[in-house]
Amino acid sequence: MKLAVREALKGSGNVSPNPLVGAVVVKNGNIIGKGYHKIYGGPHAEINALDNCTESPAGADLYVNLEPCAHHGKTSPCTQRIIAERISNVYIGSPDPSDHCCGKGVRELRDAKIQVHNDILRSECDMVNAVFFHCLKNKTPYVVLKAAVSLDGYMATVKNDSKWISCEKSRKEAHRLRSIYDSVLVGKNTVLNDDPELTVRFVKGKNPVRIATDETLSLDGHHRIFNRLAPTVIITGKNVPHDKETFLKGKGIKIINADIHNGLLDLKTALKELYREGIMSVMVEGGGQIHSYMLKNRMAQRMALFLSPILIGGGIKLFDGKTDLIKESIRLETVSKRNFDEDIFLDLIVRYSS
Amino acid sequence: MKLAVREALKGSGNVSPNPLVGAVVVKNGNIIGKGYHKIYGGPHAEINALDNCTESPAGADLYVNLEPCAHHGKTSPCTQRIIAERISNVYIGSPDPSDHCCGKGVRELRDAKIQVHNDILRSECDMVNAVFFHCLKNKTPYVVLKAAVSLDGYMATVKNDSKWISCEKSRKEAHRLRSIYDSVLVGKNTVLNDDPELTVRFVKGKNPVRIATDETLSLDGHHRIFNRLAPTVIITGKNVPHDKETFLKGKGIKIINADIHNGLLDLKTALKELYREGIMSVMVEGGGQIHSYMLKNRMAQRMALFLSPILIGGGIKLFDGKTDLIKESIRLETVSKRNFDEDIFLDLIVRYSS
Repeated sequence: MKLAVREALKGSGNVSPNPLVGAVVVKNGNIIGKGYHKIYGGPHAEINALDNCTESPAGADLYVNLEPCAHHGKTSPCTQRIIAERISNVYIGSPDPSDHCCGKGVRELRDAKIQVHNDILRSECDMVNAVFFHCLKNKTPYVVLKAAVSLDGYMATVKNDSKWISCEKSRKEAHRLRSIYDSVLVGKNTVLNDDPELTVRFVKGKNPVRIATDETLSLDGHHRIFNRLAPTVIITGKNVPHDKETFLKGKGIKIINADIHNGLLDLKTALKELYREGIMSVMVEGGGQIHSYMLKNRMAQRMALFLSPILIGGGIKLFDGKTDLIKESIRLETVSKRNFDEDIFLDLIVRYSS
Repeated sequence: MKLAVREALKGSGNVSPNPLVGAVVVKNGNIIGKGYHKIYGGPHAEINALDNCTESPAGADLYVNLEPCAHHGKTSPCTQRIIAERISNVYIGSPDPSDHCCGKGVRELRDAKIQVHNDILRSECDMVNAVFFHCLKNKTPYVVLKAAVSLDGYMATVKNDSKWISCEKSRKEAHRLRSIYDSVLVGKNTVLNDDPELTVRFVKGKNPVRIATDETLSLDGHHRIFNRLAPTVIITGKNVPHDKETFLKGKGIKIINADIHNGLLDLKTALKELYREGIMSVMVEGGGQIHSYMLKNRMAQRMALFLSPILIGGGIKLFDGKTDLIKESIRLETVSKRNFDEDIFLDLIVRYSS
């Protein structure tokens, strides 16, 4: 199953809104085939794995990180093919909670007298498709907060200097992360201060949709996020200059008009609108105001934190919140830790106190 | 040499103000003896290693993390014994910069036709005796800042709650650290808020001298740091109530009267006084004001940081400093990283910008 997970991850960035799936066929203790869902609309992992078999898969075991589909979608049901190939055992990581599946895959296989084993490496498999499961359940994008911070929790100095808190290898990893999520989001101040392009450059991978928040629609279309390398969305208020809106739309920029409460854009509603347009995940790249907004409103599910061994002493905080007691703090569950030169990278799940 | 270093570290907490030294005797590829400096005033590592040899060390190689002594102190010179045992090669980690040594050990060995090899695992050996080398050079204690912080850099909430930011295993490690340094230092507010005992409890080891700063000598002798489990020192101002001073001295508390500049005690001078009384190292356990004071005045050489995966959002900062540009920030060099359950422990050297 570890190998199936590794296969599944090869599809990162290319299969959304589909889940990441990998499959491995094992016969007499040997791997005779493996495959993954490569691209949205393309064949599923099970089909690729069976197609790749170096000998007949009859009587073999199939390992797959997600319950095989039993419905006719863009492709034929995987269950039919598994049954037709006379697989003996199917080992499944996560169940598929989609309306059209929901245990149907397992039932069809069992009806065909195939032994089905559920929950293999369940938590690891669930993490692989955290975005997919979150979206199915909540109908809103999965939100990841990405930040490079000093050991005393600052993303920039009092003079707004942030170049560079993290090392080159960390920044390369940040580009890889951009390539696996559907979109990246920044606040207007980040556009004004840093003029980021928000494309994937230091690694191979697709560019995410670029989203900027701009309460008053004051960005004038001259910053790098407005270039033609990737689609761009501006989330703004409802009473913004009409000519400005028309001008930006003319440049191919999508405008989402959101309510403003207490001076802050209602990002919850705006993200739901993005979800309806097919955006399953948003990586928020700051600044601190948006990170804090997402955390305070319990909208962030994950954090990608690059810790740099420096002390800044003041400036832009990662999280401007309010906690009276330690037990009320936001707890982060570490999925994985990695070292990039002197930096520590933490992949964290956000657990809000109840 | 790695084994010699491991031997040396066994003396941690028991040999101050002497350096930590370990020695290993190798003959025909086999370790025939090893030893370390166990306790101040006791035999040196080389003598213990040679005494422990399971066969004659004649013609053997000796590995020792610090240049062997050539002077008559509390014990006879190690060089004489090494020469008498007819050791062939001596492998040395760090040179001994003490006035009475300073290359004399190496010279004596070479004069006796022993092959001497210097700088073996030099940086690792230098770290083992960072306190010793610092003290020889600067005549003031080595200062280590210990703190448990959230990932956003807070040591306590706005309501001063800090129980517990770090996990049980981290707190146990913090007690082990107490046992290896000569003293621990806290500010008056930490005494008032937390009433810590500052003794070693969760591990075996000697209690450090307990030091508290108290500008106005307002602590009344009823807190735990005043119990009889370890010596206690109060650093206070010069114009403090005489009867209070007499009362505390009567309880066996040592009082150091320091100048006050801009409302802050002159800890630089106070630490030098402690150094003259034999305190080679101080582990500062907070609060944030003292950590910040030490960092701003470039008095801290090392940090022992327990990072807990939580976000607090505000409260007592680890470092209340001022940095305009990232390149001017305080850089920390990671000596080692360890995991204690969900916490990350970082052993860091402080590098001030020039």
